[in-house]
Amino acid sequence: MKGAVLYGPRDVRFEECDVPKIIKPTDAIIKVSAACVCGSDLWPYRGINQVTQPTPMGHEYCGIVEEVGSAVNSIKRGQFVIGSFFTSDNTCPTCRIGYQSSCQYRELVGGAQAPLLRVSLADGTLLATPDIPPDSLIPSLLTLSDVMGTGWFAAVAANVKPGSTVVVVGDGAVGLLAVLSAKQMGAGQIIAMSRHKSRQNLARDFGATQIVSERGEEGMARIKELTSGIGADSVLECVGTQESMMQAIRSTRPGGYVGYVGVPHGVELNGQDLFFAHVHLHGGPAPVRRFLPELIDLVWNGKISPGKVFDLTLPLDQVAEGYRAMDERRAIKTLLRP
Amino acid sequence: MKGAVLYGPRDVRFEECDVPKIIKPTDAIIKVSAACVCGSDLWPYRGINQVTQPTPMGHEYCGIVEEVGSAVNSIKRGQFVIGSFFTSDNTCPTCRIGYQSSCQYRELVGGAQAPLLRVSLADGTLLATPDIPPDSLIPSLLTLSDVMGTGWFAAVAANVKPGSTVVVVGDGAVGLLAVLSAKQMGAGQIIAMSRHKSRQNLARDFGATQIVSERGEEGMARIKELTSGIGADSVLECVGTQESMMQAIRSTRPGGYVGYVGVPHGVELNGQDLFFAHVHLHGGPAPVRRFLPELIDLVWNGKISPGKVFDLTLPLDQVAEGYRAMDERRAIKTLLRP
Repeated sequence: MKGAVLYGPRDVRFEECDVPKIIKPTDAIIKVSAACVCGSDLWPYRGINQVTQPTPMGHEYCGIVEEVGSAVNSIKRGQFVIGSFFTSDNTCPTCRIGYQSSCQYRELVGGAQAPLLRVSLADGTLLATPDIPPDSLIPSLLTLSDVMGTGWFAAVAANVKPGSTVVVVGDGAVGLLAVLSAKQMGAGQIIAMSRHKSRQNLARDFGATQIVSERGEEGMARIKELTSGIGADSVLECVGTQESMMQAIRSTRPGGYVGYVGVPHGVELNGQDLFFAHVHLHGGPAPVRRFLPELIDLVWNGKISPGKVFDLTLPLDQVAEGYRAMDERRAIKTLLRP
Repeated sequence: MKGAVLYGPRDVRFEECDVPKIIKPTDAIIKVSAACVCGSDLWPYRGINQVTQPTPMGHEYCGIVEEVGSAVNSIKRGQFVIGSFFTSDNTCPTCRIGYQSSCQYRELVGGAQAPLLRVSLADGTLLATPDIPPDSLIPSLLTLSDVMGTGWFAAVAANVKPGSTVVVVGDGAVGLLAVLSAKQMGAGQIIAMSRHKSRQNLARDFGATQIVSERGEEGMARIKELTSGIGADSVLECVGTQESMMQAIRSTRPGGYVGYVGVPHGVELNGQDLFFAHVHLHGGPAPVRRFLPELIDLVWNGKISPGKVFDLTLPLDQVAEGYRAMDERRAIKTLLRP
């Protein structure tokens, strides 16, 4: 079979790969219905994370179970399933608390930008939909594997409640779905920070009540203006740079909450600044598995359509163009069809 | 009158000071019944914070109201009052949320190690006890001005609930009262990190169930051993150094809570380490005013005796010895009687 392999900065190739096989009795093999390119795939693609060896790419996936190992009980061949980018046994003490992305036995999924994918700890990682979904639901179901679960976690971590004032820093796919999540949780005011017209439009469509295009000091001043002079109750950080993190912390009111889900790159937080900012800070890799039952239900019943973040759909053999379009910000997010 | 003035590292003098007067109509003058030396007073005393000019010392206080300004309504002459180290109007948006120590009009109290003290924003800062307290209650009531309120905030910020597993980093007065606070909130297991026999004893008296004397990697390993291998639900950081902060973060389970109240000195947190630690982080200057009604009630009714942290009581004119004893760790905390 052929899949996407990253060789180095801006060098992603569609090439022959080994067909995945059951290795452990808890594994499953999935026939991938759809995969996509993640914002975090751009870190190595841009050379910010080093690529030390040819790396099969892709960790967002959904599809039909092709085969299961002998110890897999709840997941069956023929089911349509979605799983997290981190596998989890869903029974260890960390999983039971709802932090499956820090499962003691977790493995990072790789190689989902391919026709077939091996997923370890299948029973604890995958969840089946009520039935085989219509094709129209596949983009939205695919987002639950990472990007939507991550936006949702940003809102949970930032303690979004009915009536909250919310700021979302970052207008990538995660930021836009963080807007959708905050809306779904009943936020009263949702300010999206964005300078791009098409992303502003989608943010409004997802529930943003205001757009702030300024950044830095000016951005902070605008946020304060819009939030009784003190900052927002909840700020959702969806980028992962020093600038975006400080933007988030400084946009939060004393006693307010920062939920951060952008993988930090070069971020250093000064203890005393954080102390006097008086904010709550929580984030990390989203425990997608915790949210899957609720999010599958919301998508299945047409309550949310997170699949709208895909503004480019390509056959898998054009994966390189999918990366380029996101790198150049021509596309918000690329869906790939094997 | 004579009060404590810091001139430079290890140079605190008991010398003639101006008698405080009402400056603003919202001020009150208090006849100080007792004051004390704070752990945070040791930062400038040790030269870690620079002393740029002779500085009247002391921000923990309780006493009898001597005089009030024309705009003070709820606080009356003759009442016994306790107030926070940060003044607050208790009506601004930040105060209403319960973060009075970030009040938009706050001032840092100074000069409490003296017979008389001016406190601004008296109505929003001070709270009167039900009656003039017996002398035996004064040490415990005094702690509510800062050290007990700060230990309490550490436990609140770290989300201590009935049954929680708790670790307290730091065996100074704040750390010991953080143990007491966690106990009062119903923690199931309280591990105090301490290497000093007398402090270990007081920690046990306040409710610690276990003592860990190791630090660093060894300390972390001991904590994991005692907490099902994953770390504690709640870790209360009561020091403010890089070492103590990392000890706290690494002792917390994924999804657990770090409450940090030690004023950070030289602390830098790496964004990616924090991200993958998966902890909640909250702290800052304790909003003592929020907790005063409940804590006065607990002390008044004999439910808690935080005054036990004072193991040295001196007349105010021996204030220099009070600092020395704490600096050399001969005393946990010094109470000063004008």
